[in-house]
Amino acid sequence: MEESLAAVMRTAVARAEQARGRTSPNPPVGAVVLDADGQVAGLGETQPPGGPHAEVVALRAAGERARGGTAVVTLEPCAHFGRTPPCTAALLDAGVARVVYAVSDPHAAAAGGAKVLADAGVAVTGGLLAEEVARGPLRAWLHHIRTGRPHVTWKYAATLDGRVAAADGTSRWISSAVSRAEVHDLRRKVDAIMVGRGTVLADDPALTARAEDGTPAPRQPLRVVVGHGDLPAGAKVLDDAAETLRARTHDPAEVLTELAARGVVDVLLEGGPTLAGAFAEAGAIDRVLAYVAPVLLGAGPVALGASGVSTITGAHKFAVEEVTMCGPDVRISAVPSRNQRN
Amino acid sequence: MEESLAAVMRTAVARAEQARGRTSPNPPVGAVVLDADGQVAGLGETQPPGGPHAEVVALRAAGERARGGTAVVTLEPCAHFGRTPPCTAALLDAGVARVVYAVSDPHAAAAGGAKVLADAGVAVTGGLLAEEVARGPLRAWLHHIRTGRPHVTWKYAATLDGRVAAADGTSRWISSAVSRAEVHDLRRKVDAIMVGRGTVLADDPALTARAEDGTPAPRQPLRVVVGHGDLPAGAKVLDDAAETLRARTHDPAEVLTELAARGVVDVLLEGGPTLAGAFAEAGAIDRVLAYVAPVLLGAGPVALGASGVSTITGAHKFAVEEVTMCGPDVRISAVPSRNQRN
Ligand SMILES: NC(=O)c1ccc[n+]([C@@H]2O[C@H](COP(=O)([O-])OP(=O)(O)OC[C@H]3O[C@@H](n4cnc5c(N)ncnc54)[C@H](OP(=O)(O)O)[C@@H]3O)[C@@H](O)[C@H]2O)c1
Ligand SMILES: NC(=O)c1ccc[n+]([C@@H]2O[C@H](COP(=O)([O-])OP(=O)(O)OC[C@H]3O[C@@H](n4cnc5c(N)ncnc54)[C@H](OP(=O)(O)O)[C@@H]3O)[C@@H](O)[C@H]2O)c1
Repeated sequence: MEESLAAVMRTAVARAEQARGRTSPNPPVGAVVLDADGQVAGLGETQPPGGPHAEVVALRAAGERARGGTAVVTLEPCAHFGRTPPCTAALLDAGVARVVYAVSDPHAAAAGGAKVLADAGVAVTGGLLAEEVARGPLRAWLHHIRTGRPHVTWKYAATLDGRVAAADGTSRWISSAVSRAEVHDLRRKVDAIMVGRGTVLADDPALTARAEDGTPAPRQPLRVVVGHGDLPAGAKVLDDAAETLRARTHDPAEVLTELAARGVVDVLLEGGPTLAGAFAEAGAIDRVLAYVAPVLLGAGPVALGASGVSTITGAHKFAVEEVTMCGPDVRISAVPSRNQRN
Repeated sequence: MEESLAAVMRTAVARAEQARGRTSPNPPVGAVVLDADGQVAGLGETQPPGGPHAEVVALRAAGERARGGTAVVTLEPCAHFGRTPPCTAALLDAGVARVVYAVSDPHAAAAGGAKVLADAGVAVTGGLLAEEVARGPLRAWLHHIRTGRPHVTWKYAATLDGRVAAADGTSRWISSAVSRAEVHDLRRKVDAIMVGRGTVLADDPALTARAEDGTPAPRQPLRVVVGHGDLPAGAKVLDDAAETLRARTHDPAEVLTELAARGVVDVLLEGGPTLAGAFAEAGAIDRVLAYVAPVLLGAGPVALGASGVSTITGAHKFAVEEVTMCGPDVRISAVPSRNQRN
């Protein structure tokens, strides 16, 4: 039974992943409603701000079949009135007999959903696949609730010897087609994509989320270009494919404050080395996502520029969270570590 | 049955790994003799040059139990008189009924062992775990037979951003204790360890194979320092812990010719960036073994120096063979690739 609930939770996680990039500042949540016989009766994910939460979408899809059934949700249902009525009320109204969720709601104003449901006689279980969800669709939102800052993923594509471009500046396709497709999928899921002005000058990237055939994704993240200088007229980031924010500062904290004020929760920092170095120095890289191509250059700019470290003991320390192949490339995901190395 | 023969072959592979570093220019081979009931009767691995081959050691251990039994060997038994009599004769004398081997002998003078045995009525099967053996203990020897050159593994320890030292030159323990232990195990298995003179000046490494407690391995590989200049008196590579060769050239081909002349088959190139760049440019890196530590520096020397590449399409292309965790570090093994990337 637990085994099959885990499978149902994974379906809810997949729905949550679908919602990413459209819900901030609300969390991207996924929900599955099972009927009293354990059959899937409804699926749902968080709708854009102002729209219904995941549980409500799934309950509507389930209709009368929800009565006596089970709701499986990636986040503890909310118990407070926000822009929408509390999900606990919707679950009770629908006559759900059991609620299973992954991550407890850390948001003070919303906490207590599990208790409200249990007090009303619903069987409530929390923690199912909690770590998977906390590292997955809810990662950025949980970070944002905890710190008040957007979550920053520094993504880069480098050679085995750490280069992000060749000596003549050419860098296109350092990563493989598979890795590039994955990055476009990631762009679709974040609230903002950020680069330094140097990357715009060097590569003139569009910074949009596109399908393999070039079709733009239906919703585009905010583009952010950091740096004091002006951009060349005609730069692709100035087109109307997506909104672009100019952050005329060199201070990562200022950039993050401005992004938070705009409701940005999940940021993809796509370089270059100078801006990434400044973020590393500020302790503002919450995740490193490296696509390492098995090629060697021996010259050209290195992935990370000056980050305030002059001796080995001062290195910024991370811990590897996951290593996978992405086509021919190695993808390394790492998160800040407090541990000493030896 | 095939399943259990594969397990026996893995035992033979483990014996071959034990022989590495002591057999060049002969191949490190492992052998297991099973009695007629399929029980292990004898184990063996290649002895240092002039000593018996793996099959002979295993047959001696098995004694009369070899009669009617099976010999499982990582390399096709030799059929020629070299410094020792042919292994085929020893197998026939012992009355072995079946021979199973992994890799066919590519060495012209030795080929034909399988045929000699089959002609004498022995059941012979080749190819079992051939790829595992060819990538494993026989890798360097097969390369040497094919090219006439020693096999070069470029091993380095770098940060996620490709640095092999911090800005002030400190580099000790960029890799973890687990990775360092693994490197000492690797050193024990090669014929020679090579660095450029710059690494000696910067780090004064001992370049010996040591156990975790510092005890030197019973046999030490040849130490090779490449470069025209002199070494400081008192440099550790000049102590008597192992032999040291000075290669006073900047030409990788000359270095390899000299090493081949000394019977060196398997070389570990441990940097630094300048020498590794020269080997990459010469197409003389047969395997890249990168220990990537999840730390960021943002300054300091990069793993690979000038290697004759100025634009991205000219990059030296490899293919990832294996990625594993080594303690907290990511270990990437890659081999030259003829394929285009896209
Ligand atoms: N392979 C990859 O993943 C990848 C990704 C991106 C870039 N790249 C490569 O990276 C290279 C560009 O490197 P880059 O370092 O010039 O790019 P960058 O970091 O994108 O841009 C540098 C610019 O950012 C601004 N900036 C923002 N904060 C700063 C701070 N704290 N300190 C200094 N400047 C700050 C400055 O602009 P102002 O002068 O306007 O103040 C500076 O000139 C190109 O070769 C590009 O191809 C590769
Ligand atoms: N983390 C690691 O895995 C690792 C490993 C090794 C080194 N390192 C670091 O690397 C740094 C040293 O770098 P490096 O590049 O100076 O070291 P290197 O490559 O070991 O030595 C450079 C020297 O090699 C000689 N050389 C041989 N072939 C050459 C060629 N084709 N072209 C030019 N010179 C050639 C030259 O010596 P002559 O002047 O005598 O001709 C040159 O000065 C240190 O910071 C060290 O800590 C790190």
